[in-house]
Amino acid sequence: MNAGETAAVVKANAYGLGAERVSQALANEGTRTFFVAQAEEGVTVRAALGPGPEICVFGGHMDGDAPLIKDANLIPVINSIDQLLRHIEALPSQPFGIQLDTGMNRLGMESGEWSAVRDIALSQTPRLLMSHLACADEPQHGMNAFQRQTFRQMTDGIEAPRSLAATGGTLLGSDYHFDMTRPGIGLYGGLPFVDAQPVVTLSIPVIQVREVNPGESVGYGNSWVARVPGKIATISAGYADGIIRAMGPKAHVWAGETRCKIVGRISMDLIGVDVSSVKDMPDKVELLGPHQSIDSLADVAGTIGYEILTSLGNRYARRYIGP
Amino acid sequence: MNAGETAAVVKANAYGLGAERVSQALANEGTRTFFVAQAEEGVTVRAALGPGPEICVFGGHMDGDAPLIKDANLIPVINSIDQLLRHIEALPSQPFGIQLDTGMNRLGMESGEWSAVRDIALSQTPRLLMSHLACADEPQHGMNAFQRQTFRQMTDGIEAPRSLAATGGTLLGSDYHFDMTRPGIGLYGGLPFVDAQPVVTLSIPVIQVREVNPGESVGYGNSWVARVPGKIATISAGYADGIIRAMGPKAHVWAGETRCKIVGRISMDLIGVDVSSVKDMPDKVELLGPHQSIDSLADVAGTIGYEILTSLGNRYARRYIGP
Repeated sequence: MNAGETAAVVKANAYGLGAERVSQALANEGTRTFFVAQAEEGVTVRAALGPGPEICVFGGHMDGDAPLIKDANLIPVINSIDQLLRHIEALPSQPFGIQLDTGMNRLGMESGEWSAVRDIALSQTPRLLMSHLACADEPQHGMNAFQRQTFRQMTDGIEAPRSLAATGGTLLGSDYHFDMTRPGIGLYGGLPFVDAQPVVTLSIPVIQVREVNPGESVGYGNSWVARVPGKIATISAGYADGIIRAMGPKAHVWAGETRCKIVGRISMDLIGVDVSSVKDMPDKVELLGPHQSIDSLADVAGTIGYEILTSLGNRYARRYIGP
Repeated sequence: MNAGETAAVVKANAYGLGAERVSQALANEGTRTFFVAQAEEGVTVRAALGPGPEICVFGGHMDGDAPLIKDANLIPVINSIDQLLRHIEALPSQPFGIQLDTGMNRLGMESGEWSAVRDIALSQTPRLLMSHLACADEPQHGMNAFQRQTFRQMTDGIEAPRSLAATGGTLLGSDYHFDMTRPGIGLYGGLPFVDAQPVVTLSIPVIQVREVNPGESVGYGNSWVARVPGKIATISAGYADGIIRAMGPKAHVWAGETRCKIVGRISMDLIGVDVSSVKDMPDKVELLGPHQSIDSLADVAGTIGYEILTSLGNRYARRYIGP
């Protein structure tokens, strides 16, 4: 790692967008360090990038992972004494990082554990000491300063590079940057990075359009019934494509410049859309794009933009538009 | 198709379980007709099965699909006059089926459209006439008899094989079976087939276990705070694996025979679990299996078992246990 470096988080298939292509594009732009959640993901990213870039695994060194870590030359971020012992025993010369828990109680060594193994760990020259913020998307939350202070107490005076900030932490200011920041969602156009550029559009083909008369119902359970004459388009995607079923009652798509309400229940592969007010019916409608961001769609689904992205299904054809 | 045949719906990657392996297993058990949602899925199933079985595409013949339909020898189920004309023009000798709308207003020709093209369509000897029930999981719903009657009015006297019933319709009784039933969810252990055998188990590895003291919080946003001393396990899965984020506040996993509450927000790759009452901590916990079915998990997520299945993520290693 290099001081002041910006790494890239490409876990969860690069937040649903395709780890291979996203990692390659970021490497071409100069990214030298990548983070994944699990060793298997690291293998995928290594195959896409070839030797050279560093690939760190947040989940650390899990039982059975040694061959993957070795063959793909991954850097597990060790989370516990168990993992540290497992790593040193199985792969004594393989680089590793250390994750410290500074209050989120999710991953990483607690203060007591760290004290117990700190000397052993540091004698092996870890490539990185890191922690993760629980409330970085709430800049005023007292937890941020508390975690930063705890991180400093656990790591001040150690020579290894340090990293605390993901996207939210990066935006908290330079006090949180240490030696490396590691944005994830900010790369993919989502909050809390309000100035992020949208990076994904999603168009869904229309299978057919039909007229409905008052009293006719649409979809499962007859949950939507026409009150006036109208037109319904059936589009070719559903909850199996990650269009979260719960968003049905509140969600819209765009047919050209016309906002169109989803009607009836979202089914597995199909969705009904009220296109009564659309004059020139296009052959595709927009779910994500200029009219609707991942965060605005997340709002109607009662979730966060991250889940909209990671839910993007396998049946979509992903097309990548270069810089 | 053969009279009295039971076909299999393997769309959406066989409801998340793996279209190739599921289709092969069903073919080995004698299934001769398979249904998918989109032509691309049909190509996958054809590659898995080889020549012989019939593969029908609910979405019909979409613009641009002709090469896929021809090369994989698929049977598009035609939904509209547009699709019928497209099919006859592009692939005049390729078999097709016809979907009729009997009230769901989702896919298929309306009565008026069907009257207009019925003679042309029948002159091409369609392999199947089908429709789909909107309320089959509510046996007492008047919509069922209405749709059955409408289907008969549109198809009585025609020689082509007929199909109306998916899993729910099959359970409505022989009046709904016509020449072919085509179960989907019933094959995969879900309601409305109450006697279905569960077919999927899901185990999630534990990364680490930590002690928490009163006042310590777990996960993003400090949304869960310990009130008594306890133990928290961090498990290696999250909403990127299809564990719907909204289920967090109500969901449980099993550590051996002990039911353990999910605590804190479900994050992308990680979940916190209260394992304070677990005596012998296993290295994996159960999300789906003997203690929790897809439908009981769906209940706490506010959805249906189908969405639990189709959300199963790509990072899980799928292991198939033969009969």
